[in-house]
Amino acid sequence: MALIVQKFGGSSVKDAERLFNVADIVTSKYREGNDVVVVVSAQGDTTDDLIEKAKEINKNPSKREMDQLLTAGEQISASLLAMAIEQLGYPVVSLLGWQAGFTTSTAYGSARIKRVNPERIRAELSRRNIVVVTGFQGVNKYDDMTTLGRGGSDTSAVAIAAAMHADLCQIYTDVDGVYTADPRKIPAAQKLDVISYDEMLELATLGAQVLNNRSVEMAKKYHIELEVLSSLTRAKGTIVKEVTNVEKMLISGVAKDDNIARISIIGVPDKPGLAFRIFSKLAQKNINVDIILQSIGRNGTKDISFTVERDKMDTASELLESYVEMIGASSVVYDDNVAKVSIVGSGMESHPGVASDMFEALFEANVNIQMIATSEIKISVLIDKEDANKAVAAIHAKFFEQVMQ
Amino acid sequence: MALIVQKFGGSSVKDAERLFNVADIVTSKYREGNDVVVVVSAQGDTTDDLIEKAKEINKNPSKREMDQLLTAGEQISASLLAMAIEQLGYPVVSLLGWQAGFTTSTAYGSARIKRVNPERIRAELSRRNIVVVTGFQGVNKYDDMTTLGRGGSDTSAVAIAAAMHADLCQIYTDVDGVYTADPRKIPAAQKLDVISYDEMLELATLGAQVLNNRSVEMAKKYHIELEVLSSLTRAKGTIVKEVTNVEKMLISGVAKDDNIARISIIGVPDKPGLAFRIFSKLAQKNINVDIILQSIGRNGTKDISFTVERDKMDTASELLESYVEMIGASSVVYDDNVAKVSIVGSGMESHPGVASDMFEALFEANVNIQMIATSEIKISVLIDKEDANKAVAAIHAKFFEQVMQ
Repeated sequence: MALIVQKFGGSSVKDAERLFNVADIVTSKYREGNDVVVVVSAQGDTTDDLIEKAKEINKNPSKREMDQLLTAGEQISASLLAMAIEQLGYPVVSLLGWQAGFTTSTAYGSARIKRVNPERIRAELSRRNIVVVTGFQGVNKYDDMTTLGRGGSDTSAVAIAAAMHADLCQIYTDVDGVYTADPRKIPAAQKLDVISYDEMLELATLGAQVLNNRSVEMAKKYHIELEVLSSLTRAKGTIVKEVTNVEKMLISGVAKDDNIARISIIGVPDKPGLAFRIFSKLAQKNINVDIILQSIGRNGTKDISFTVERDKMDTASELLESYVEMIGASSVVYDDNVAKVSIVGSGMESHPGVASDMFEALFEANVNIQMIATSEIKISVLIDKEDANKAVAAIHAKFFEQVMQ
Repeated sequence: MALIVQKFGGSSVKDAERLFNVADIVTSKYREGNDVVVVVSAQGDTTDDLIEKAKEINKNPSKREMDQLLTAGEQISASLLAMAIEQLGYPVVSLLGWQAGFTTSTAYGSARIKRVNPERIRAELSRRNIVVVTGFQGVNKYDDMTTLGRGGSDTSAVAIAAAMHADLCQIYTDVDGVYTADPRKIPAAQKLDVISYDEMLELATLGAQVLNNRSVEMAKKYHIELEVLSSLTRAKGTIVKEVTNVEKMLISGVAKDDNIARISIIGVPDKPGLAFRIFSKLAQKNINVDIILQSIGRNGTKDISFTVERDKMDTASELLESYVEMIGASSVVYDDNVAKVSIVGSGMESHPGVASDMFEALFEANVNIQMIATSEIKISVLIDKEDANKAVAAIHAKFFEQVMQ
């Protein structure tokens, strides 16, 4: 008998048929004698529908009321899933974030889990109930509802798994595992049996969108083995865990992120501290900066370029327009017609030549590179958005399909 | 400066336009310097839609999960109303039942409010926030969500008014007050300026559907003056309060209830205790019995007839079918093609002849009376459903329109 945490995303619970499919997966684990805790997201487009309803009334509602509104989404899906499990004849109870013991920070809309007190979940399990928990939400010290931000249900699942020392945490989604590239775009993409936390982290932040990165960080910290798998195919998925040296793959995947924008500040005076001041300004507004490139420039000035999430571009530009004048730079230039393509692989640390293979693939595909950034296990390039799919295909072919050529 | 509790029903908050209308009513009271607590129902058909979603999955879901599901409805309307108030530029906070301090009994689906701890509401008011509270819901001793049953939002509003000693409790609905009859059916129906708690109670239980009867009972108990008014016309409504003798009207209204069924148990042996056993059986299943008529019968047996809510007829009949045999009665007969028509008026206590006037009106309209029941301030008759509107018109004309004839 084991304790299993299973998380199902919005598309896995989007209608009655899918809910019964999930109920079947859950109860089959329960029948084997396991304790089962299920974490669910809101159904299908519920969250987007609620956001739209809110925007119809108030273009800029307070984040507190937004959270009060959005938490209803998982409440609905969790209770409906419980009813489906009841219908199959199994004992079940659904719990909201606050009932399940989720205490979070006060940051409405992007709260962090501070603590999971699993007392109630334990009590329900000891009564042999299947426990369905609303993902994505908790309650803060003011007794206000909070949400963890998009993808937060993964984090909810891992947090429960960590708090309860679960034996396995399965993340059911609409893909059946982690691939070497997006299988919808690259038919030759291969499913990975195993991937390390670090590789998964790089892929998550790079727009591969399989797992929320906070959930992977948490899984890594608490040594929770994750399995990413599909609620539809029910095939074996991809295990995310600490990978030993022997298992390390040279490259585990190619990812594309075209939800970004490039901002360049032109003619920044060459004085110390200015870059720091620019980026701390952005950080204060919660704008994450990714690839940064600083040119040598001319006439005692330099250009600083960086990327931000596309929907942060307007906020960032407003902020910088006024600031640029103050620090004596000449102008700010924006471009959201860009994409970032990256390769990730924990094996590249010990294998030089990976970068040059990647650049060669791009050169052969006639893709121009605007910016380059590297970490120990990742190489990213910024290119024109229209080249993105071509670039991913060329890089994937170079690293994964050479045997077939 | 006063403390005002305002309650808005589902049709008053059904879409963005109506929400802004409500926000305007609320903020106009706030601008006058009042503390304002607003109680809202779920938007329009939300509750029915959620019930339908549930039934698609499970025809007979547990009441606990039903409550977990349904409480999302007011959560959505309360946060959206808060956003509309924010949009108008006023400070506001929405609170769920449990956040607002509503503790209820454990009876899922029809919980009773045990206590309202208004600490959080008070704290928010002292920050000059408008407070929006979800009606219809609370939390029980297991920390589970509960609902108060249909119409429970009225009770929520009165409970807050009672707990906080509010100066006024306004119940906004889609009619602009209490009428002498349903104004959609009887064009000559007149709006009442004032009605007593007792009259309102009789009207509420009689299908006039203006106010939930539990809310009126609670208002009576705690001496909360209610005003029933329309969120659309904004005209002065009807005040519900303790009425002195001078103000007492002979008849305050005529009401119809066709959401009932008649059940007759034929040939009950004439032994003491059988009637008690039948009705306690029904009470155990939470089936309320209204008009009861016991015939003298023949051959040492009697017939017992009574009315129940129409949607309880199947449960009641199942229960009785088996029981009837056990107690030696011969059969059970059902009829849901009936309606109850009643007149209510606290003045009739001291005026004999009201009943005979009513029966005369029915006789002149050629309406056959099946059963009669009377209380101190009410006379009800059970008639064929198809005669119901004709009967109401005839009675209303007799008592309210004679001057015009």
